[in-house]
Amino acid sequence: MVANNRVLLTSTPTGIPEERHFEVVKSEVPALQDGEVLVQNEWLSLDPYMRGQIAGRHLSGKVSPGDVLRGETVATVLESKSELVKAGDKVSGFGGWQEYACLPAAELVKLRDDIKPTSYALSVLGMPGLTAYAGLVWQARIKEGDTVLIPAAIGAVGSTAAQIAKNKGCRIIGVSSFPSKIKYATEVLGYDACLNRLDANVEAELKKLAPDGVDVYFDLVGGEMLEMASRNLAIGARVILCGLMADYNNENKTPGPYPGLWIGARAVIHGLVVYDFQSRTDEFLDAMIPQITAGKMGMLEDTSEGIASAPAAFCKLMRGENEGKTLVKIK
Amino acid sequence: MVANNRVLLTSTPTGIPEERHFEVVKSEVPALQDGEVLVQNEWLSLDPYMRGQIAGRHLSGKVSPGDVLRGETVATVLESKSELVKAGDKVSGFGGWQEYACLPAAELVKLRDDIKPTSYALSVLGMPGLTAYAGLVWQARIKEGDTVLIPAAIGAVGSTAAQIAKNKGCRIIGVSSFPSKIKYATEVLGYDACLNRLDANVEAELKKLAPDGVDVYFDLVGGEMLEMASRNLAIGARVILCGLMADYNNENKTPGPYPGLWIGARAVIHGLVVYDFQSRTDEFLDAMIPQITAGKMGMLEDTSEGIASAPAAFCKLMRGENEGKTLVKIK
Repeated sequence: MVANNRVLLTSTPTGIPEERHFEVVKSEVPALQDGEVLVQNEWLSLDPYMRGQIAGRHLSGKVSPGDVLRGETVATVLESKSELVKAGDKVSGFGGWQEYACLPAAELVKLRDDIKPTSYALSVLGMPGLTAYAGLVWQARIKEGDTVLIPAAIGAVGSTAAQIAKNKGCRIIGVSSFPSKIKYATEVLGYDACLNRLDANVEAELKKLAPDGVDVYFDLVGGEMLEMASRNLAIGARVILCGLMADYNNENKTPGPYPGLWIGARAVIHGLVVYDFQSRTDEFLDAMIPQITAGKMGMLEDTSEGIASAPAAFCKLMRGENEGKTLVKIK
Repeated sequence: MVANNRVLLTSTPTGIPEERHFEVVKSEVPALQDGEVLVQNEWLSLDPYMRGQIAGRHLSGKVSPGDVLRGETVATVLESKSELVKAGDKVSGFGGWQEYACLPAAELVKLRDDIKPTSYALSVLGMPGLTAYAGLVWQARIKEGDTVLIPAAIGAVGSTAAQIAKNKGCRIIGVSSFPSKIKYATEVLGYDACLNRLDANVEAELKKLAPDGVDVYFDLVGGEMLEMASRNLAIGARVILCGLMADYNNENKTPGPYPGLWIGARAVIHGLVVYDFQSRTDEFLDAMIPQITAGKMGMLEDTSEGIASAPAAFCKLMRGENEGKTLVKIK
């Protein structure tokens, strides 16, 4: 039987998680049941929504002390008791923070051959990318000339959103709070400008950059940023509500902006849950992969090695210190 | 020269307006300029948005002490210095709280002959009706079987919205706070149920009436009702943000609901400003008038006589004591 290194939550953090809230344990992989598959995880995606799971405030359910942390992985099938996939297949699925996983075959997605590099299946061509695409293209229907405001400018969703919007001919304004990220946003990702969230004049700067208002605000954070963006919308603006990062590390449920702001802007606000769009993954990939092949789309990856590195990498993500998509190379 | 009785604002109320905040004065009608028209007002519409104008918080601008109150009227043209309308034409326009008005012809709309009775041009076939229609049909795209929640159940917008939704095959739930209004809502307007907003169990009652959640919430009030509705949305719900009555009589700008509620419901929220839809008035009238002719649509009118009755009628509206559309019969 294979030994399986796994990361458990040991206690529920109240603020920003620290490594002491996690531990690595060895266990055995349980025997396969009919319809199940044993996979070896190669890449693990670490994402802000996991903080919501730990807090018991995410749609996908709660992760409690003693549980293995959940997460999406790219994996190789080692053994299959299903006709859906066979040994040797590359798949993506919710393999979790562990080296091996035993999963229902029906919950796995076979990786398309044209996803290169494979790790992109967890970022620009995976759930973060689909999130950005669904919000901007299917919900907000961005068009050439739109001014698009993106907080968490160089995170996985934010940097994909920026590139999608740029390639559609939008003006893109990012928001970050680290000088190195701001530099990366404008010099590499193609942001027309990137605001520093901690700058006392941030709203005045936004007004200067978008004197006619923001056409599309892709909200990943909630809180004060959502409020500020709502005060600065153009008539006919679209707002995508997709994440509440500002609340994930505290006990708050910050109220939304004054609704009069949205009435005045005749705004259309969309609640976005990426799982609703998974059935349209091929349509998304067909639109995105040519842009990657043409060198007009990519993903900065912030990679650590080995499953034991996951807690530190996640805590770094939670402190906002990651630069690009946070990944763990497990094998 | 004709003497013109007009109602002025004398001071800005801080809470619910009282008659002492208004006065009736006599003045002369100014001479017509080219392109202008002298009209004799017949019906004046009193509406909640006027409280926003008095507070300086409405899109259409502020009404300050000393100003004539603004408002939509149905009127007869007495004299015209424009080719657009001629003496004897029936028109609607912003004639204000006065007997006569001198208005740019370009801002008047000739009344269609099929609007009967004429006063309906200020309610079910006027701006309140267009508000209800634009929100439910063009924005929320109501369909048969939707559960539609309407606060201010028997007001001009609310009661029109109820009838539009009912005629489309929706289930309609109203909210009011007066037993007589609740009775009228269910017995006459066709509401499937009408909640009492002041009932301590109002949310539990809503959950009983809409166990699968609310598909469409037509918000006219903001505040706690918007919050409660947002906690009880069905997946794929639509919310129309159209009024903030709960805030108009105080200094508050109550924040919106926790955005996580809207993400969870995958809600689409629309800011509605009725002026944006005025170019589609004929489309709206063509859909509505046959329902009126067929006896499937109507409007309860709460009418007072003479321009001097306007302040008392408006204060009654602000106390929520009107039953149906508040109108002043001026002539």
